[in-house]
Amino acid sequence: MIVTSGVMEEAEVESVSMNPLGRKGAAMATSQEQLCIFGTGDLGRSLGLRLLQSGYRVAYGSRRPHSCGPLPEGSRVMSHEAAAKAARLIFICVHREHYTFMETLAPYLKGKVLVDLSNNLKKGMYPEPNAAYLQSLVPGATVVKGLNTLSAWALQKGLLTGKQVCLCGDSKRAKQAVAEVATKMGLTVLDRGALSAAQELEDFPLQLFPEWRLPLRIAVGLTAFFFFYLFIRDVIYAYVEEEKDISYRIMVSLANKVFPIVSLVMLSLCYLPGVIAAFFQLYRGTKYKRFPNWLDRWMLCRKQMGLVALGFAFLHAIYTFIIPIRYSVRHALISRVVDEMKNNKTTPFDFDYTEAWGTDSFYVLGILGFFLYVLLGLTSLPSVGGSLSWREFSFIQSKLGHLTLLICTAHGYIYGWNKFLRLSTYKWYTPPGYMLCLVVPSVVLVLKMLILLPCVDRTLTRIRQGWERSPSNATEKSTATNL
Amino acid sequence: MIVTSGVMEEAEVESVSMNPLGRKGAAMATSQEQLCIFGTGDLGRSLGLRLLQSGYRVAYGSRRPHSCGPLPEGSRVMSHEAAAKAARLIFICVHREHYTFMETLAPYLKGKVLVDLSNNLKKGMYPEPNAAYLQSLVPGATVVKGLNTLSAWALQKGLLTGKQVCLCGDSKRAKQAVAEVATKMGLTVLDRGALSAAQELEDFPLQLFPEWRLPLRIAVGLTAFFFFYLFIRDVIYAYVEEEKDISYRIMVSLANKVFPIVSLVMLSLCYLPGVIAAFFQLYRGTKYKRFPNWLDRWMLCRKQMGLVALGFAFLHAIYTFIIPIRYSVRHALISRVVDEMKNNKTTPFDFDYTEAWGTDSFYVLGILGFFLYVLLGLTSLPSVGGSLSWREFSFIQSKLGHLTLLICTAHGYIYGWNKFLRLSTYKWYTPPGYMLCLVVPSVVLVLKMLILLPCVDRTLTRIRQGWERSPSNATEKSTATNL
Amino acid sequence: MIVTSGVMEEAEVESVSMNPLGRKGAAMATSQEQLCIFGTGDLGRSLGLRLLQSGYRVAYGSRRPHSCGPLPEGSRVMSHEAAAKAARLIFICVHREHYTFMETLAPYLKGKVLVDLSNNLKKGMYPEPNAAYLQSLVPGATVVKGLNTLSAWALQKGLLTGKQVCLCGDSKRAKQAVAEVATKMGLTVLDRGALSAAQELEDFPLQLFPEWRLPLRIAVGLTAFFFFYLFIRDVIYAYVEEEKDISYRIMVSLANKVFPIVSLVMLSLCYLPGVIAAFFQLYRGTKYKRFPNWLDRWMLCRKQMGLVALGFAFLHAIYTFIIPIRYSVRHALISRVVDEMKNNKTTPFDFDYTEAWGTDSFYVLGILGFFLYVLLGLTSLPSVGGSLSWREFSFIQSKLGHLTLLICTAHGYIYGWNKFLRLSTYKWYTPPGYMLCLVVPSVVLVLKMLILLPCVDRTLTRIRQGWERSPSNATEKSTATNL
Repeated sequence: MIVTSGVMEEAEVESVSMNPLGRKGAAMATSQEQLCIFGTGDLGRSLGLRLLQSGYRVAYGSRRPHSCGPLPEGSRVMSHEAAAKAARLIFICVHREHYTFMETLAPYLKGKVLVDLSNNLKKGMYPEPNAAYLQSLVPGATVVKGLNTLSAWALQKGLLTGKQVCLCGDSKRAKQAVAEVATKMGLTVLDRGALSAAQELEDFPLQLFPEWRLPLRIAVGLTAFFFFYLFIRDVIYAYVEEEKDISYRIMVSLANKVFPIVSLVMLSLCYLPGVIAAFFQLYRGTKYKRFPNWLDRWMLCRKQMGLVALGFAFLHAIYTFIIPIRYSVRHALISRVVDEMKNNKTTPFDFDYTEAWGTDSFYVLGILGFFLYVLLGLTSLPSVGGSLSWREFSFIQSKLGHLTLLICTAHGYIYGWNKFLRLSTYKWYTPPGYMLCLVVPSVVLVLKMLILLPCVDRTLTRIRQGWERSPSNATEKSTATNL
Repeated sequence: MIVTSGVMEEAEVESVSMNPLGRKGAAMATSQEQLCIFGTGDLGRSLGLRLLQSGYRVAYGSRRPHSCGPLPEGSRVMSHEAAAKAARLIFICVHREHYTFMETLAPYLKGKVLVDLSNNLKKGMYPEPNAAYLQSLVPGATVVKGLNTLSAWALQKGLLTGKQVCLCGDSKRAKQAVAEVATKMGLTVLDRGALSAAQELEDFPLQLFPEWRLPLRIAVGLTAFFFFYLFIRDVIYAYVEEEKDISYRIMVSLANKVFPIVSLVMLSLCYLPGVIAAFFQLYRGTKYKRFPNWLDRWMLCRKQMGLVALGFAFLHAIYTFIIPIRYSVRHALISRVVDEMKNNKTTPFDFDYTEAWGTDSFYVLGILGFFLYVLLGLTSLPSVGGSLSWREFSFIQSKLGHLTLLICTAHGYIYGWNKFLRLSTYKWYTPPGYMLCLVVPSVVLVLKMLILLPCVDRTLTRIRQGWERSPSNATEKSTATNL
Repeated sequence: MIVTSGVMEEAEVESVSMNPLGRKGAAMATSQEQLCIFGTGDLGRSLGLRLLQSGYRVAYGSRRPHSCGPLPEGSRVMSHEAAAKAARLIFICVHREHYTFMETLAPYLKGKVLVDLSNNLKKGMYPEPNAAYLQSLVPGATVVKGLNTLSAWALQKGLLTGKQVCLCGDSKRAKQAVAEVATKMGLTVLDRGALSAAQELEDFPLQLFPEWRLPLRIAVGLTAFFFFYLFIRDVIYAYVEEEKDISYRIMVSLANKVFPIVSLVMLSLCYLPGVIAAFFQLYRGTKYKRFPNWLDRWMLCRKQMGLVALGFAFLHAIYTFIIPIRYSVRHALISRVVDEMKNNKTTPFDFDYTEAWGTDSFYVLGILGFFLYVLLGLTSLPSVGGSLSWREFSFIQSKLGHLTLLICTAHGYIYGWNKFLRLSTYKWYTPPGYMLCLVVPSVVLVLKMLILLPCVDRTLTRIRQGWERSPSNATEKSTATNL
C-alpha cells in the first residue's frame, strides 16, 4: 500500500481499494454525499440549491420542518437532530443571536464539522467572533469559519466560478472537507489558518473598497489643495487686484484646471513606487529583501491610483469638450469681435503660426494621452487583463504606462511653454498650478530614464533574475537563480 | 477486475490494477472513461476535442467510419453499433431529421444514456421537442436533454469555464452522469427537472436577448412619444404660428432633446421598482411574501434598463459635444454678431452673471451625472461586478445609483429654472418635454427619501433581516431570522 | 458488487454506511498526494502555495534546505534527493543554466515525471528547447513541458480559473498526471502532442500580441499612405499652387482626415473576409473544404481589426470634439465676421437649408456609427461576449456590425455629396482621400447585399448546415447534416 506520509488513517486507503466501484461509480458516489444545512433563510436556500446542483444531497434542519417555506427541489427537511445525524458537514446559516439552540443539540453535533457562514451587521458588535462563540457552545464539534463572503444572490445566480473564499479552523481535516465541497461548487479556497483568524474573516464582508481608500484619500486631498490654491490665485486675486468678479469661473474653468492637475499627479504617483523599488533593489543589490511597509502598501494600490487618475482625465476631457457651448465663452467671443470692429484694430487678427502650432500640439498630446489612458484602463478590466500573457500585461502597464505619463507631462509642458517667462504668470509670487503639478511627473520620468540607461538596466535585470551582489552570500547565488 | 465495457485495451486496465499507483492511478482511471459521440459535424468534433482535453476517451459513431473527415487527434471512429457498445454515455450531435437511424440501433442503445444536444432553426418546427422524439424512437435508452446552448466555436476555444448549462431528463442517475462530464469540462450544471422541460431548453438558444426586450420596448415607446410630442411643439408650432421652417432641427436639436428625456425616464424606471418593493414590504410587514408578477419581471430587467439609459445618455453627450461645429449654430453666432454691429445695440452683450452661473451649473451637473452613469455601467460589466463584494456592489448600484438619479434630475430642473414661469414656454398650452420627464424621477426621489427617514428605514432593515410584523405568525419569528 | 450500469442505489448507500468516512475520506486521500518542486524562487514558491491550496502536499527540493528563505506555510523543504524520492511528479522551477545538477540526481529521478516550467529570455538562445535538454540529462525520467505560461504573480493571486495551459510530452500517462494536477488548480489543459512541440511552447510566453501584429501593420501602413497622400494634396498643393503655408493643419485637420479613413477601411477589412468566405462556399458548394491559408489568417484577426478600427474612430471623435476650441478655427470665425462687416456683403449669411440638413445628417450618421462601434467593442470584451449566447453574439457581430459599416459608409458618402462634382476637388487630378476610402466598404456592402438576396441566402444557409452540392459526394450527404 502506498501511504505517502503515514498521516492518513488506514481505513481510508482501505475503502478505496476494497470497494471496486469502477471509475464512474466512484466519482458519482463521491459527489452524492449528504450535507446538512441549519437555517432555511435566503442564504440557506441558495446554498442548498447550489449544493444540489454540485451533486450533493441536501438535508435541511429546521425547528418546524413542516412550515418553513419553499426549499430547493430535491432537498429534504427534517428536525435539527435528524439532519445533524444525517451528515458529517453542517452549514450554519442562522443569525448569531439564535445560536443558543445548538447547545441543546450538542450530543448530536459531536464529531461533526460545523461551517459557520454568519456575518454581523457592524464591526465590533460582539466581544468574540461568531465562530468562536459557536465553538464554545458546541465544544464537541469542529468549527470551520468561512464562505461568509458568499451572498445568497451570487449563490442563486451561480456566479461562483473562480471566486475566492477563505476558510479558517483548527482542524486541518475539517478544513479539507469543507474546501472540497467549496471546490466542487467552483470556488477557489484560501486557507487562512486557525480559528483565531475568524474575526478577520467576519470583518471581510463589512469592508467597503479597502484598497481604494488610500488612492481616494490622496485624490480628495490633492483636489482640495489645488482647488483652494487656484481659487486664491485666480478668483481672489482678480477680485483684490483687478476688482473683477470672475467667481462664475469656479464651476467649469477652475474645475477644468484642477482635474488635469490631479490626474497627472495621480498618474505619476502610480509609477513612482515602481521606480523607487528599482532603486531600492539597485542599492541593496538583491531582490530578496522585503521593501519597507509603506512602499508595499503603495505598490498594492497602483491600479486603483491609475483608475482614479483616469476618472479625473475623463472629467477633464468632457469639461474641455463643452467649453465652446458655455455662455461666458460665447460672450467673450462675440464681445471680442464687436470690440474689434468698434476700435477698428486689425493686429490681433493676423494669423499667428506659432500659436496655431502650439495650441494644436497641445491638443494633440492631450488627445493621445487620453487615448492611451483609456487603453490602460481597458486592460485593467479583470477579463481583459486576464486574457493577456504576463509579458503582454507588463508591456502595456509598464511601457505604455510610462509613455502615457510622458505624453501627458509633455501636454502640461506645452501648456506653459510661452507663459513661464512672463512675470504676470507669478501672481502674488506664487507659481501657477500647472508648474506645481509637473514636478512629480518630471521626477518620475527622469528617474525612469536613469534606470533605462544600459549599465543600470543590465544590473537591474540581473538582480530581478535572482542575482545578488553582496559577496557574503556568494554561496547562495546558485539557488537564487531559481525561476 | 473493473472492466466497465470490455472495449478498452487489456493492457491499460492491467496497468491500472497491476501497478499500485494509489490515488494518482485511481484518479487517472476515473477520468479515462470512454464516451461516445454520434455525428462528426462541427459540434461533434468540437465536443470530442473538449472531452479528450478533459481526460476522457472518445469514440465517434459514424455510418462511414472511413470517410468522415478530420476528427480530433486521439479519438477513434467506428460504426454506430460498435461506438454505442463502447460507452455508457452517448452524445447525439445529429440533426433531428436524421434521428431515424437510431431506431435500428435500439438494441445497442438499451440502458445507455443518450444526451440530446440538438437545436432547431425556428421555434415550433415540430410538434414535440427533439428529445421527446428521440426517446420515443429509442424507448430502451434514457434520454437527457442538455448542453444544447454550447456552440462548436465556444467548445473549440475552450471558453467554457463557469458557463451555465441546463439539463433535463427523467432519470436522476442519467442526469448525474451527464452533469459530471459537464462539470469536468468546466461547466456549471443546472437541473431543470424532467424531460418534459425539453421544449423550454430547446427554445433557449433561439432566444435573442430575452431580458432586453422589455427595456428596449419601453425605450422605443418613450422615444417615439417624446419625438412626436416635441416635433409638434417645436417644428409644427413654429411653422403654424410663426411661419418659420425649422425642420432642419429634427436631426440634431430635436434628437438631443429626446435622448436626455428618455435616458432620465429610463434611469428612474430602473430605480422605481426597488422603491415600490420596499413599500410592499413595509405594507405587508414581511419579506417572505412574493411580489406580484409584474414587479418581479420589472426588477429582473433593471440592469438592462440602466444600460439602455446609459446608451441614451451617451448619445446625448456626443450630440452636445458637436453642437458648436454645426452649420446652423455657427450661422446663428455669426448673424448675431453682424446684427449686433449693424443695429449698434450693446445691451445683450452685458455679461449676465446669473446666466453664466446657471448654464455652468447646468453643464457641470450634466457632466457629473454622466460620469457616475459611466461608473455604474462599468460596474455592471460581468467581470467588474464579479470582483466586487456584495456590499460593494449594492453600495454602487444603490447609493451611487440614486445619487446619479438625483444629479441628473437636478440637471433637468436647472435646465428649466428660468423658463417655467414664462408663458411662452407653454406653447399651445402644453408643458415642455423636460417638465414631463421630470415627473417620474421626482416621484422616485421623494419616495426614496421617505424610505430613508430613520423610523421607516429601521423597520425596513428589520423586515429585510427576516423580522415579521404580523402577530399571527409570531411563532415563525425565530426561524425567520435565518441568514 | 457494484456494477456501474445497473441502477446501483442499494450498493452505494451500503458502502456509505459501512465505511465510516465514505467518499469524503476517499476524496480527501486522493487530493493529498505529495508533489515535489525543485527550486525555491518566486515561481517555485507561488506554485507551491497554489498546490497546497488545491489540496496537495508539497515538498521542496533545495541544495541548502536550511537556508532558502520563506516558503509557503505547510510545505516541507528537503534535499533534492529526498524530495525526488517523496513524489512521483517533480516540477522543475530552475533556470536552464542550472539543470546540470539534475544529472547527478538521475538515479533518484528514474521513472519520475519531470514538469519543465522554464522559459528563456529570448528566442533562439539555445540550440534545443529546455525540455529536450532536460530529457537528455535525465533519460530515465519522463519530461513533460508545460505550465510555462503561468506567472508567479498569477499563481499567487489565484487568477487561474479557466486559464488555458499547454502541455506536451512523449508519455500520455505522464501528461495525464500533470493535466490532472493542473485541472485541480482550475486550469484548462490543452495537449499539444509530443515533446518535440516543446520549442513552440517555450516561445509562447515570449510572444507579444501575436494576433495583433497583422491588424496593426495594416493600420500603420494605411495611416502612412493616407497621411502622405493627403499631405501632398493639401499642404504641398496649397504651398505650390496657392503659395499659402497651411502646415499648421498637419497636427489636427490632417490627422482628423486620416483617422476616419483608416478606421473605415479597417472596419470594412474586418467584414470583407466573411463575405469572401461566403462566396468560396457558394462556389465550392460545400463548407467542408478548408479556406486558403491567407483567408484563414485574415478571419482569425477580424476581432483585432475591428478593435483597431474602433481606436481610430475614437481618436476621430475626440479630434472632432475639440475642433471649435482650436486657435485657427476661432481665428477663421472671427476674421470671417470682420471681413463680412468690412465688405458689407450679406449673401453668405443667408441660411442655407440644404447645407443645414446636409451637415446635420453627416454628424448624426457619424454619431450613430460611433455609438454602434462602441457597442461592438463592448461586446467583444471577453466577459461580455462570454455572457451572450452564440445567436446573440453572431447577431451583434454580424447584423449590427454590417449596420455599423453601412452607417459609417453613408457618413463618408454624405461628406462628399456636394463636392464630388466640383473640379476643384480633384487637385492635381487626384481623387480626395474620402473617395479612396469608400471603395472597400462599398464593395463589401454590395457583396453582402448579393449574399442577402433570397436565392443566394437560401443556398448558403443550406451549405452552412452541411448540405453539399457536388453530385459525386452524394453519398456523403447524410453524414454531412451532422450538427
